[in-house]
Amino acid sequence: MTDHQNPGPLRLGIAGLGTVGTGVVKIIQRHTALLAARTGREIVISAVSARSRDKDRGVRLSDYAWEDDASALARRDDIDVFVELMGGDNGPALDATRAAIAAGKDVVTANKAMLAHHGQSLAEAAEAAGRVIRFEAAVAGGIPVVKALTEGLAGNEMTRVMGVMNGTCNYILTRMEQDGLGYDAVFAEAAELGFLEADPNLDVGGIDAGHKLALLAAIAFGVQVDFGSVVLEGIQQITIDDIRQSADMGYRIKLLGVAQMTARGLEQRMTPCLVPAASPLGQLEGGTNMVVLEGDSVGQTVLRGAGAGMGPTASAVMSDVADIARGTRLSTFGQPASTLKSAKPATSGTAAPYYLRMRLLDKPGALARIATALGDAGISINRMRQYGHADTSAPVLIVTHKTTRDALNIALSGMAETRVLQGEPLAIRIESV
Amino acid sequence: MTDHQNPGPLRLGIAGLGTVGTGVVKIIQRHTALLAARTGREIVISAVSARSRDKDRGVRLSDYAWEDDASALARRDDIDVFVELMGGDNGPALDATRAAIAAGKDVVTANKAMLAHHGQSLAEAAEAAGRVIRFEAAVAGGIPVVKALTEGLAGNEMTRVMGVMNGTCNYILTRMEQDGLGYDAVFAEAAELGFLEADPNLDVGGIDAGHKLALLAAIAFGVQVDFGSVVLEGIQQITIDDIRQSADMGYRIKLLGVAQMTARGLEQRMTPCLVPAASPLGQLEGGTNMVVLEGDSVGQTVLRGAGAGMGPTASAVMSDVADIARGTRLSTFGQPASTLKSAKPATSGTAAPYYLRMRLLDKPGALARIATALGDAGISINRMRQYGHADTSAPVLIVTHKTTRDALNIALSGMAETRVLQGEPLAIRIESV
Repeated sequence: MTDHQNPGPLRLGIAGLGTVGTGVVKIIQRHTALLAARTGREIVISAVSARSRDKDRGVRLSDYAWEDDASALARRDDIDVFVELMGGDNGPALDATRAAIAAGKDVVTANKAMLAHHGQSLAEAAEAAGRVIRFEAAVAGGIPVVKALTEGLAGNEMTRVMGVMNGTCNYILTRMEQDGLGYDAVFAEAAELGFLEADPNLDVGGIDAGHKLALLAAIAFGVQVDFGSVVLEGIQQITIDDIRQSADMGYRIKLLGVAQMTARGLEQRMTPCLVPAASPLGQLEGGTNMVVLEGDSVGQTVLRGAGAGMGPTASAVMSDVADIARGTRLSTFGQPASTLKSAKPATSGTAAPYYLRMRLLDKPGALARIATALGDAGISINRMRQYGHADTSAPVLIVTHKTTRDALNIALSGMAETRVLQGEPLAIRIESV
Repeated sequence: MTDHQNPGPLRLGIAGLGTVGTGVVKIIQRHTALLAARTGREIVISAVSARSRDKDRGVRLSDYAWEDDASALARRDDIDVFVELMGGDNGPALDATRAAIAAGKDVVTANKAMLAHHGQSLAEAAEAAGRVIRFEAAVAGGIPVVKALTEGLAGNEMTRVMGVMNGTCNYILTRMEQDGLGYDAVFAEAAELGFLEADPNLDVGGIDAGHKLALLAAIAFGVQVDFGSVVLEGIQQITIDDIRQSADMGYRIKLLGVAQMTARGLEQRMTPCLVPAASPLGQLEGGTNMVVLEGDSVGQTVLRGAGAGMGPTASAVMSDVADIARGTRLSTFGQPASTLKSAKPATSGTAAPYYLRMRLLDKPGALARIATALGDAGISINRMRQYGHADTSAPVLIVTHKTTRDALNIALSGMAETRVLQGEPLAIRIESV
């Protein structure tokens, strides 16, 4: 509709010309006419900035002004939107984003770490300045999930948000299952293929996915981003036996994020979970992402797509740019930052069944002692399997009925005291999806 | 962001108080504060209209003015948005929508039939008047697919849009498969459960889903809605044997809509298709809807959710209402109606493998003649199965290699001339998903 107002081109300054930044340049060059037809404005790049000016990125940059310094780019008079694709929760990305807001620019960013740590203060600053910060590309790559949640489901009180949002973890778990490989072997392979962040703990430790979950939770529940309260657990402890044995019982293991508002406060978890193998989440393979949005009116809505890569992430960036070109103005987290409540972390988690894996010493009465430790904590057993063994300890799997993590921790302490276990038991939550 | 401008409440007039209308009233009454927090405006209902004033709908309507006539409602001075939930492609819904635009109101509608037939003229009228028409609820119920396509994937040249968008058909096909029932039995059951439209051909003939496909195609490819060119084929001919035999070969049968822009023009089909049983579309069960959006940058994005029902459809209506409250102004089909090109229907369809089901008379050389008819049309056979039989004709299944529908029609004519077939063969396209 904006074409009637003839507002002139929307001028971008792009900071960061890695995979995503280069992808954005490519889309703008390839789809100039399409974007103008859809948004009613020409979308142009005025200036760019990156670490190295000389690197060949496979796109023509000579029409754009160059800045060595992202903050200088952010303050240029000839840009309307600062597109931050540098990454890093602090340092140059944060400085430049603040500079852009101070200079009256809108901001589009793919930086989940920066927003997970500084989202509230950035949103307040932007809204005080009458500017927007948009971050579709920060969560689940090309899937338009921020838009679906903020706008598409705006009439719902959200009840739960779940997601497999780290493609690398899902790739590792899928490859372990499909090829019967151990965690270490697949991890090494993923590192070699360049699938891992410079600090691999960001991926396999669940931190990257935890950032994304905290952003979705803020929108879903109208709270300030609270990454510090996300319960984080990585996939490093998952063995090929866990994968096989849970498959045996009809489950798959996923690094699953869950955020829900409960009477005990806001629960946010990014942990390995068992999900039914036949569910959409259970069927997700490789680097694909999936987000499940549950609202009181809409029920369950599932979105699935590419969670990373040049095209998909650049597509998400362009969604935000197109919105700004069309004149759409939204609060960063779907309602004014000043109205977001402080998140009260849940004092305890929602009850769930758990999968327990342990090795039991080959002693009379060993299993009875484990069962007693569970019973003493008020936990009843749904299914149990003891596997054949050649050595002095037997692999034992237990699926409990619904219990709280607190009760489970008491049972785990009780088990340790029985001295019939070899090593530490592993407990994985079974999420009802 | 709109709260700073303090624009006063957004006043709705709701025409139609069936399931969806009642659902919208419920959301507005239950989530007054939530909606105001998210949109920056109070959303209120000023007036309503429906066929019967006295019917008990389980919601309090006494605070709202009543109009017997929807067009009178549409013209009231105390409404900003006309919410059209009456249905019907012509008659009162169309009259009232035109009246609303003429009176300077924005329109939110769930009426796929009206937009499939009159979308272009309504969009032109609305845009000339500076008003918006939004229709998230018209396609795939609660799934925010219009938003995902129009806004979330705005940076993509779309390559293909697919969808299972009629819950009743998917329910019938799923129940046939799961319970081994014939089409007629499940159809009768669906009718009894109230799952069917007054004219059941709207559902099982693919018309309702075809309306939805034509709307998505207009957005995806920047063309004027062209429902008349949608190739329609219903599910009435699908037998339990087709379902079993295609399952045998790793497929499921779905009423699948496909729209794609080809060198031969715009292809729009809403027909039964075979899809791999292991694909997301193949795994879709019951009344759930799924839409697959494919773009040049984003790749494949899949959305899944409730395609009908009070809560989900009302949720979609509220998404549009919330957008208007937030000040978001979009062209009806994602770009100004005046710039939408006239759709040039494809002169022939994209090539695909086909599933052929026939009964062959028990005569020497019968199969050879069928194979010859295919070969003469340039079609080669990928797989063939002849099933055991007790009577004078044998069930034969053939899966062809890729071929065009034109070549297939030549082969089907050739087969008919062989006089070795009992009855008509059935051909179902195998869609690559």
